[in-house]
Amino acid sequence: MSGHPHDNYPTRLERPADPIARIEPTVWGEGNDGPLSEHDLKTMAANGYLTRPQTLGQNWLRPMGDELARIGGLIDDEDPRIVRERQGGIRSVFEPHLFSDVIAEVIGLDTVLPVARQLLGSDVYLHQARVNLMPGFTGTGFYWHSDFETWHAEDGMPTMRAVSCSIALSENYPYNGSLMVMPGSHRTFFPCVGATPTRNHTSSLVRQEVGVPDQATLTAAANRHGVDQITGPPGGGLWFDCNIMHGSGSNITPFPRSNIFLVFNSVENKLCQPFAAAEPRPEYLAARTTEPFSVQSATA
Amino acid sequence: MSGHPHDNYPTRLERPADPIARIEPTVWGEGNDGPLSEHDLKTMAANGYLTRPQTLGQNWLRPMGDELARIGGLIDDEDPRIVRERQGGIRSVFEPHLFSDVIAEVIGLDTVLPVARQLLGSDVYLHQARVNLMPGFTGTGFYWHSDFETWHAEDGMPTMRAVSCSIALSENYPYNGSLMVMPGSHRTFFPCVGATPTRNHTSSLVRQEVGVPDQATLTAAANRHGVDQITGPPGGGLWFDCNIMHGSGSNITPFPRSNIFLVFNSVENKLCQPFAAAEPRPEYLAARTTEPFSVQSATA
Repeated sequence: MSGHPHDNYPTRLERPADPIARIEPTVWGEGNDGPLSEHDLKTMAANGYLTRPQTLGQNWLRPMGDELARIGGLIDDEDPRIVRERQGGIRSVFEPHLFSDVIAEVIGLDTVLPVARQLLGSDVYLHQARVNLMPGFTGTGFYWHSDFETWHAEDGMPTMRAVSCSIALSENYPYNGSLMVMPGSHRTFFPCVGATPTRNHTSSLVRQEVGVPDQATLTAAANRHGVDQITGPPGGGLWFDCNIMHGSGSNITPFPRSNIFLVFNSVENKLCQPFAAAEPRPEYLAARTTEPFSVQSATA
Repeated sequence: MSGHPHDNYPTRLERPADPIARIEPTVWGEGNDGPLSEHDLKTMAANGYLTRPQTLGQNWLRPMGDELARIGGLIDDEDPRIVRERQGGIRSVFEPHLFSDVIAEVIGLDTVLPVARQLLGSDVYLHQARVNLMPGFTGTGFYWHSDFETWHAEDGMPTMRAVSCSIALSENYPYNGSLMVMPGSHRTFFPCVGATPTRNHTSSLVRQEVGVPDQATLTAAANRHGVDQITGPPGGGLWFDCNIMHGSGSNITPFPRSNIFLVFNSVENKLCQPFAAAEPRPEYLAARTTEPFSVQSATA
């Protein structure tokens, strides 16, 4: 389907296949390339994730809350960049930096953009950006998956040289659906069974049905790596590798969860044809430019 | 419907009604009536729950695991005492002490039965007993509710003089669907809207649809009381009042949760006609005897 002469990370297969050891490094930059210390970089390389308190300072939280409310109110329900929960509430808004100078400014902060450059050892662009507005009571969570598995299969991302940054805009408790990761799982690629349905993204953003490992694979991975849950106050940043196994449970509490979610890709990791899908996903899910991100270009 | 001349805790109403302050005490016994200290009793009275590590000693855990496997294998699928998840796995087995001398023995332990007697200040009987076998991956959790609300409405329990004891048989992590409680919420009765469907128990044990407070009520209660999550190693006991607001999220991890769940009622709190249902639930969900529990009678 893909027309690629060779695929290092085959997935969406007809039958189960063995896990594949990751080829690329996790950290591409050095300790003097940006804000992260050598210790930070070692932690990221070993665990596949790194927490950075106060990625967004306290003074940002109220304006950000106002901005989320404004964005949630502005946008046309027919806009595909708005993903709703099955019950109707808004779950995500994609490309929020195109609606909001405030969010574009956040992406350009010293605690954000230079960290992405340092981790990936190059200029970076936004592969995907969204704000997630997870309401209390009805948040259904998200099953275990590797983002790279989807980006490789459906977007044509060739190598593991992308990183996500999630900035909490509300308190992450242990019991309101906070993200779980399997630390160290980013060094293994788990091929998944099942062909990609046409226009899979129209349902997979609410509930992923393909591109998830089977239960035996997840059990072995959890027993090997354990599970870490990411909790903490608003403003905290979580950086996690594109291939780390992660997921979240439901949220029956009244306490909502909101975050800004940014995926940075190296400009040297340009997307090609999807490796396991008929057509690439839309640009708002997977940008096909490699123009390095700058606040000016976002808000122009 | 109930024929009761007066109902202190009306529920399953046609329209919303104000919360009602609890009439009865939470703790009925004294510090010299049993294993609990004055401090324990004060904690229980204030919070509505109490944790007791090693309610089941380490030496019990392997035999209990074997016993659960045996019970799960023995029982006829047509037996109504077996409740399955929507996906098919076994969720609960009721009256396990009638299938298992080992479980009957656990109920009679010094860390269990005398605690129940002390909390309720009288002889006690088993209103309900079950083992819960919550598998990894597919545990769907349970929405917020007060048990007393159901026992009053559907079983005819007249007063708040019952207590539950949950004994963990597997590790309760923050992220595998562990029980959440709103500490202090047991002192308020929240009337619920919606009449009880006929034979409601045939579906409510998998997913409760009536007898749950509305979101505004739960939000106010959570903001007032907060949420505590009960975690810890196997063998730990959790005692919680019949009227505390509690629930649990989903479990997408591979780590299962199992427990023995015992509801003790005071022999002075005999069930009468249901307060808001046409017929009482079956005996295996709500025993109508008040014969005090003893290991001998359970295994006779």
